[in-house]
Amino acid sequence: MSDPVTAALLVIGDELLSGRTKDKNIGYIAEYLTAIGIDLREVRVVPDIEGEIVAAIQALKGRYAYLFTTGGIGPTHDDITADCVAKACGVTIDIDPRAVAMLRERYAEGDLNEARLRMARIPAGADLIENPISKAPGFRIGNVIVMAGVPSIMQAMLDNVAPTLRTGVKMQVVTLDAGGLPEGLYGTALGEVAKAHPGVSIGSYPSFSQGNFRNQIVLRARDATILAAAEADVMALLARLRSDSVPI
Amino acid sequence: MSDPVTAALLVIGDELLSGRTKDKNIGYIAEYLTAIGIDLREVRVVPDIEGEIVAAIQALKGRYAYLFTTGGIGPTHDDITADCVAKACGVTIDIDPRAVAMLRERYAEGDLNEARLRMARIPAGADLIENPISKAPGFRIGNVIVMAGVPSIMQAMLDNVAPTLRTGVKMQVVTLDAGGLPEGLYGTALGEVAKAHPGVSIGSYPSFSQGNFRNQIVLRARDATILAAAEADVMALLARLRSDSVPI
Repeated sequence: MSDPVTAALLVIGDELLSGRTKDKNIGYIAEYLTAIGIDLREVRVVPDIEGEIVAAIQALKGRYAYLFTTGGIGPTHDDITADCVAKACGVTIDIDPRAVAMLRERYAEGDLNEARLRMARIPAGADLIENPISKAPGFRIGNVIVMAGVPSIMQAMLDNVAPTLRTGVKMQVVTLDAGGLPEGLYGTALGEVAKAHPGVSIGSYPSFSQGNFRNQIVLRARDATILAAAEADVMALLARLRSDSVPI
Repeated sequence: MSDPVTAALLVIGDELLSGRTKDKNIGYIAEYLTAIGIDLREVRVVPDIEGEIVAAIQALKGRYAYLFTTGGIGPTHDDITADCVAKACGVTIDIDPRAVAMLRERYAEGDLNEARLRMARIPAGADLIENPISKAPGFRIGNVIVMAGVPSIMQAMLDNVAPTLRTGVKMQVVTLDAGGLPEGLYGTALGEVAKAHPGVSIGSYPSFSQGNFRNQIVLRARDATILAAAEADVMALLARLRSDSVPI
C-alpha cells in the first residue's frame, strides 16, 4: 500500500483572527482533500505580516507533501501572499505575462492599473491556476499551492489544481451511532478496542443540542479488512452495553 | 498606552482535519477575545497525536500572553489534551479531588467509572474552569487555558475564565463600504493611505455573491485620534474615486 499523501493548510488574514470574517475554507478543504485521498495534517491561521507568513510557509512546506494557502492574493497593499511565497521559496517575483493575459480577459488595457497588476505578480517558476470567476490566477510553485480567500474562487481553483496532485489510498470511514449510550459508559472499553486495532483510528465525538448529548463513534482506516474487524468489535461492544444499561 | 495582550488558539482533533466536523470555535473565540481586548495572533489545528499537541503547546505558550485550547478533554481514549498539557508544562497529572467533586454533581458514586474519571485528570497546579453543562471542568495552568470542544460548553468555559484574564486597550474598528468601487481602482491609493498611517491596520475585504463583489475597507487601531485621521483620508479617497469613476 502506498504511503499516505499529506498536506497542511495555511490560512492568511487579519480578518479571520479578529473574528470579522468567519472562515469557510478550512472545513471545505479538509473534506475535499480527504475525499481525494490526501491527509490534511495541520492548519495554521496567521495575520497579514510578512515574517509570520514566510515562517509558516517554510515550516509547513518541508513537513508535508503539499502546502495549500488561502487569502492575500488580491490587488490591495495588504495582499502580500505572493511576495511571501517567493521569499519563502527563495525565488524572485515579477509581473508574469501569462497572468497579465488572464487579467486582460476581464480588464481592458487601460483598466490594468498598478493595483490590478499586483495580481499578476507571480513567483518565478510557478504554474498558474485558473480563476474562472475574477480571472486573477492562483499559482503553484513546488509543493506550495496558493489560492484566493474568497470561498467561491478558492473552490474553483481547488477544482482546477486537484487533478494535478498526487493522491494516496483513500481513507475509509465508518460512523456508528452510540444510540443513546453516554461516552463515559463505553470510554474504557472503546479504548481497549482501539488498542487491539492499531491500524484503525477510532474517535468518539459528542455533540450537544437541546439538552442532550448525541455520540458518534468514527472508525477510519485505509484497509477495508482491518476496518471491518474493528467495526465488528465496536458493534459488539455497543450491543453488550445497550443490553446491560438501564435508561439514563 | 499598555502593550497589547496577545493570544494563540490551538484546536485539537482529527475530526476537524478530516472535515467530518466543521469548526465553530475559531470564529467565536476570535470575536470574543477581540471584544475584551485580547489580540488573537495565531491559530493551529492539530490531530489527536501526542507529539503534535505537545510540540504546538510548547511553541505557542512561550510566544503569546495566553494559549487557549479546545477539544480532547472528554472520557474516551482519544481525549489526550490534559496529558499533553501536563507534559508540555513539565508537571505531573492525576485525578484531582476538586474535579471529582464537580463530576459528582452529575454522576452518582457508582457511575463514576474509569472513563469518567479520566475527565478529572488535571495537571498539577492548575485552576479548574467550571462547566455548567456537563460538569467535567476545563482548567488553566500558567498561561494555558484548556477548554472543551463542544461549542456550547466551550462558550460557557470562556465566560467563566474571561474575568480572570489580563486584557489590553481594545482595538477600535471602523468599517467603510467601498460603495461599488472595485478593489483594483482604489488599491494603490489605499496602500499610500496605509503607509501614511503606520499606527492603523488597514485591510480591504472583498466578498463575492450572486455574481457581484462587495468590498469593505476595515481600519483598526487602539487610539481613536489616529484612527479618525486615517478614516478621514480613506473617506476622501473613496469620494474622489467615486466622482471620477464611470459605472463599471
